[in-house]
Amino acid sequence: MTVVQGLLRFETAGKGLTDITGEVAVWLAQSRLLKGVLTLFCRHTSAGLLISENASVAVQRDLLRWLDRLAPEGSHYEHDDEGPDDMPAHIKAMLTGSALTVPFAGNRMLLGTWQGIYLIEHRARGHTREIVLTGIGE
Amino acid sequence: MTVVQGLLRFETAGKGLTDITGEVAVWLAQSRLLKGVLTLFCRHTSAGLLISENASVAVQRDLLRWLDRLAPEGSHYEHDDEGPDDMPAHIKAMLTGSALTVPFAGNRMLLGTWQGIYLIEHRARGHTREIVLTGIGE
Amino acid sequence: MTVVQGLLRFETAGKGLTDITGEVAVWLAQSRLLKGVLTLFCRHTSAGLLISENASVAVQRDLLRWLDRLAPEGSHYEHDDEGPDDMPAHIKAMLTGSALTVPFAGNRMLLGTWQGIYLIEHRARGHTREIVLTGIGE
Repeated sequence: MTVVQGLLRFETAGKGLTDITGEVAVWLAQSRLLKGVLTLFCRHTSAGLLISENASVAVQRDLLRWLDRLAPEGSHYEHDDEGPDDMPAHIKAMLTGSALTVPFAGNRMLLGTWQGIYLIEHRARGHTREIVLTGIGE
Repeated sequence: MTVVQGLLRFETAGKGLTDITGEVAVWLAQSRLLKGVLTLFCRHTSAGLLISENASVAVQRDLLRWLDRLAPEGSHYEHDDEGPDDMPAHIKAMLTGSALTVPFAGNRMLLGTWQGIYLIEHRARGHTREIVLTGIGE
Repeated sequence: MTVVQGLLRFETAGKGLTDITGEVAVWLAQSRLLKGVLTLFCRHTSAGLLISENASVAVQRDLLRWLDRLAPEGSHYEHDDEGPDDMPAHIKAMLTGSALTVPFAGNRMLLGTWQGIYLIEHRARGHTREIVLTGIGE
């Protein structure tokens, strides 16, 4: 049993999903871990991590529009120092969560056929986002 | 320290919660792990895993009705190739999440008195759902 | 590799966020684990765990008000045996989740600059809440 830890950085382009499945798979391959659990942790409170459908970009657009309706920008938030998109971003980050846990075996993640791993940016403008990866296993 | 991994399959009957606490407890007992963390991972993007109240079926019905109001079927989704219940299912799966992490000791999960582990089906029709279990511990 | 497990109890004062980052950091320091993953698990179905912005109390108030609007008290729930705040609390607990996973290195959690760990109480009155901590690592 061992622990392997690393950090990946991604540049987002404002609100949207970034498919990071490939980068995470490469990181896991290089870790040489065979069987265990991989934890991804987003070090930010206005972006998050999500497992979602990997076949249709329309699904991503629907998710983003639905989140925008659920937590719209507006003048009804007390916290607005950092712009109208900031408080909705914190709300969406609460809903989508900051961490993912994915099992692996044979040095590969056990994702379902239609599952991809996404970094979801909730701020209007792009940001550099850090994801800590920790693999625990054999 | 060791890793034990397995797969459980469940047949759902359409939208609803399936209590899988018993099956998970049996799996953990057979793993012979004493102390550590158990990760459950749902390999689908229109079903999820949930820890919820285990005493009242009315709670489950209220949760399902509330989710239906929050992400209703309708003609306002761009993605509708797989039927009107598909996009609401992806939205609900984003909210409920695809993984659970439960600590255990003495070969038993440390759930609270009122906590049960549920597979939540978000599609209208029943499906076969796969859950990967990974126990890491002593 | 080793597993260290413990329990922290917190008294909440009704609906609100309790910053538990300091207590968790002390627990991790005492565990003497250097590198790995820490899992926090809330043993209740009407309270949860959340990573959120740690600089502005206004953010917390906005989160709570938004949750109250999304899952309001009212007469439209079937389950109301334990008071009008009970079913909204179960709904909010479904959204915020019962567990957190946080990576650590050098015996310190790898939280981002603006991230704090919060216990979120969803019931109107205060309760004693139990959090199981499990550190797995070297």
